[in-house]
Amino acid sequence: MTAMIPGTLRVDTPSLSSADFLADPAAAFIALRTFDRPTLVVSRARVAAQYDALVGGLGDARIHYAVKANPAPEIIRLLVQKGARFDAASRGEIELCLSQGASGADISFGNTIKKPADIAYAHAHGVTLFAADSEAEIDKLRTHAPGAQVYLRVIVENSSADWPLSRKFGCARSALAGLMGYARDQGVDVAGLSFHVGSQTRRPEFWNPVLDQIAELWTAGRAAGHDLRVLNLGGGFPATYEEDIMDAGTYAAAVMEAVAARFGDVPYVMAEPGRGLVAEAGHIVAEVLLVSRKSPDDLHRWVYLDIGMFSGLAETMGEAIRYRIETPHDGGETGACILAGPSCDSADILYEQRPVMLPVALTGGDRVVIRHCGAYTSSYSSVGFNGFPPLDVVVI
Amino acid sequence: MTAMIPGTLRVDTPSLSSADFLADPAAAFIALRTFDRPTLVVSRARVAAQYDALVGGLGDARIHYAVKANPAPEIIRLLVQKGARFDAASRGEIELCLSQGASGADISFGNTIKKPADIAYAHAHGVTLFAADSEAEIDKLRTHAPGAQVYLRVIVENSSADWPLSRKFGCARSALAGLMGYARDQGVDVAGLSFHVGSQTRRPEFWNPVLDQIAELWTAGRAAGHDLRVLNLGGGFPATYEEDIMDAGTYAAAVMEAVAARFGDVPYVMAEPGRGLVAEAGHIVAEVLLVSRKSPDDLHRWVYLDIGMFSGLAETMGEAIRYRIETPHDGGETGACILAGPSCDSADILYEQRPVMLPVALTGGDRVVIRHCGAYTSSYSSVGFNGFPPLDVVVI
Repeated sequence: MTAMIPGTLRVDTPSLSSADFLADPAAAFIALRTFDRPTLVVSRARVAAQYDALVGGLGDARIHYAVKANPAPEIIRLLVQKGARFDAASRGEIELCLSQGASGADISFGNTIKKPADIAYAHAHGVTLFAADSEAEIDKLRTHAPGAQVYLRVIVENSSADWPLSRKFGCARSALAGLMGYARDQGVDVAGLSFHVGSQTRRPEFWNPVLDQIAELWTAGRAAGHDLRVLNLGGGFPATYEEDIMDAGTYAAAVMEAVAARFGDVPYVMAEPGRGLVAEAGHIVAEVLLVSRKSPDDLHRWVYLDIGMFSGLAETMGEAIRYRIETPHDGGETGACILAGPSCDSADILYEQRPVMLPVALTGGDRVVIRHCGAYTSSYSSVGFNGFPPLDVVVI
Repeated sequence: MTAMIPGTLRVDTPSLSSADFLADPAAAFIALRTFDRPTLVVSRARVAAQYDALVGGLGDARIHYAVKANPAPEIIRLLVQKGARFDAASRGEIELCLSQGASGADISFGNTIKKPADIAYAHAHGVTLFAADSEAEIDKLRTHAPGAQVYLRVIVENSSADWPLSRKFGCARSALAGLMGYARDQGVDVAGLSFHVGSQTRRPEFWNPVLDQIAELWTAGRAAGHDLRVLNLGGGFPATYEEDIMDAGTYAAAVMEAVAARFGDVPYVMAEPGRGLVAEAGHIVAEVLLVSRKSPDDLHRWVYLDIGMFSGLAETMGEAIRYRIETPHDGGETGACILAGPSCDSADILYEQRPVMLPVALTGGDRVVIRHCGAYTSSYSSVGFNGFPPLDVVVI
C-alpha cells in the first residue's frame, strides 16, 4: 500500500504559505512535486484533525475505523496512537491492525460472512466483538469464539444515502426476534444490534427514519430479556465530493442527539466511519492522456486519464461518487466532457451519463488532481489490469 | 500472477482416467487437490489446443492474443512458442511479452490512448503496429514512432454481443475519411482499419452487419488512395458460459468466410482473441462461506463465496457473464439463490437480478468450481480490497 516518494521538486515550484500546508497538506505536497504515475497522497495530519472533530461530535460513542476504507499501515498506526478502535472485514485486516499496535479487544470483526478458521484466529488474538446475521454464523461463533459478544445486523429501509446498500448484509427485521432467540438457545451472548444507513449519507436528518426502525427492535429485544448493551451505528458518515458536506463534528453531534433521543443511555455505542474519516485527507494526482472527439460535430469531448475504474476509481461505478477535479486551466471557459480511464476495457468510463464540465484548454499531458480520494481507492485498485500497475500511495 | 501449488492430495482422491486429464486438465488438477484460498487453475495444454483450433479456422489471418485477458507469463511464453503474435494494451504488457520471448515486430500496441513515453518505448523495441482514433494520437505517433503502421479504429453499430462495447474507442464512421486525410497530411502511414464486434459475440452471423460497415469504409479508403493492407478484426471470439458455444475452429472459419466475401484478398488480417482463447482453459476453485435466508419466508437463499466481484469475478458486473458453477451436490434438488462475494461491500453481489439455481444441500464449507474463468479474472482482482489477498493463479 505504501511507497517511496517518487518525483522531485518541480522547476516552477509555486510558492506556498505555511497556511496552505496546514489547510490541506496533501494538496500542498502534490503542488510541490512531480509524479510519474497516478498517485494517492494522504495526509496523516488531516486524518488526525478529522478524527478529533468526529470524537468531539460523537461524545461517549467510540470510533471503530472501517479499515477497508484505507488500509495504509501509517493511517492505522496513527489511529492506534490516537486511541481509535477498529472495524475489520477480514482476517487480513485484523492482522494489519495488530501489526500496527492495536489490541484484539479494540477490534470488531464486522463481516457477517466469516470463515471458521478466521473466527478462531480472531478469538485467539483477543477479539471479542463479532457481527452475525444468520443462524449458521451464530453456530460458527459459538464453536470458534466462545464467550464472544455478538451484535446482530438488521436490514433497514428508507435509506437516503448516495450509495444505498443492498440487502446483502443483515436479517430482515421480522426475523430478528427469532434469531435472537436462536442465539440465546445456543448460549451465544446477543450483546447488541448493528445496521448501516448507507454509505455517504449526506445529512444527519436522513438517519432518523432508520434510527426509528432500530429503536423499535432494540426496545422489543430488551423486553424479551436480551441484555442489549452494544449499539453499532455502522458507517454512513459522508465526505465532501460534488456537494459540500457540513463539518464532521456538527454532523456527528446531530446523529448522536438523534440516537440519545431514541435509545437513552446505552453502555457502548460504536460508530464505524471510514469515508467520513479519511476521504478528505487524500487526493489523487493523475495525467490527461488524450482529449478527443468522436467526430468534428461531437457535442462532448472525451477526456482520457491515466487512472480509471480498475486502477483506483471504482466508486465511480454507476457514477455514484462524483469527485471534483482540478486542472491547470481552472477559471477558463469550460465544456461538457465524458471522462474515461486508460484501459482497453470499454466499461472503464468514469462519467458519461452526466458529463463533467472541464476547461476547453485541457489537453494531453496536463496534470489533474482528483479531490478527496482518501477512501475506497487504493484498496479497490486491481493488481495490474491491462498491465497498468496498482495505484501508488504516499502517506505524508 | 503465478504461485506455488498449494494444498495436498485429498484423502478421498477420486479416481481419474487419463481421458479426464486430457479432456479438461484444470478440472482434473482441481479434483485432486485442496486449496486454502480462491485459486484459478489454467491449463496450458487446453490453451494450446484452443490456439490450434483457432488457427485452423482463421487460415491466413494471424492471431494477436489480447494479453489483458490473462497475462500469466507461462501463457505468454507458450503462445510465443506456438508462433502467436500479441495485442498489448500498455507498456507493461509489451514488457511482459518481450520478457517471454516475443519480438517487438510481433506485438501490436492496440490501445488508442497512449502516453508519449510509452509509444517511444514500444518504437524503440521494434513495435511497428499501432492503433489510433484521433488527431492527437496520430500526432503522438508521428513524433514518437516514426514509420509506424497505424490502423484506425472505428466505432461500429448493431452489436449483438453479450458485453457490447461503449463508444469509448474509435472514431465515428463519418469522421474516418477526415482522420485518414489528416494522417496522410502528417506523413503517417494509414495501414488499415480496426473495429470490435463486442466481447462474447456468441454467433458468427452476428459479425455480418458490422463487417458490412467496415467493408464500406475500407472500399472508400482505398478509393481515396490510402494503401489499406491491415484489417484488424479485434476480439469478440466467445467462450462457453451459460450457453454452449460452437467450437472455436468452426466459429473462426465462419467469420473468415464472411470477411473474404466482403474484403477479398487482404495482405494482413489480424484477429485478437482473448476470452475465446483462454477462458475455457481455466476454472476457479472457491468455497461457500455461508448459506442463509434473510427471514424464514425468504424465497431465495443467499450464498456467499470466498471470491467476489473485487477478487476476480469482475465480469459479473451487470450480470453480463454468467458462469456455470459446480458443487458437490450436483444432481440433487435445486433452488433459487442470490450469489454474493465475501467483502463488506454491498455492491459485491454476483447474481441477484436473475438468481442461480443451486442445490438445496449446499452449505458453508462446500467447495465449488466456477467453470471457464481463464479470461478476465486474475488481472481484474484487486490488490487487497477488504484485506482479502488477490486471486491465486496456478498454471499447469
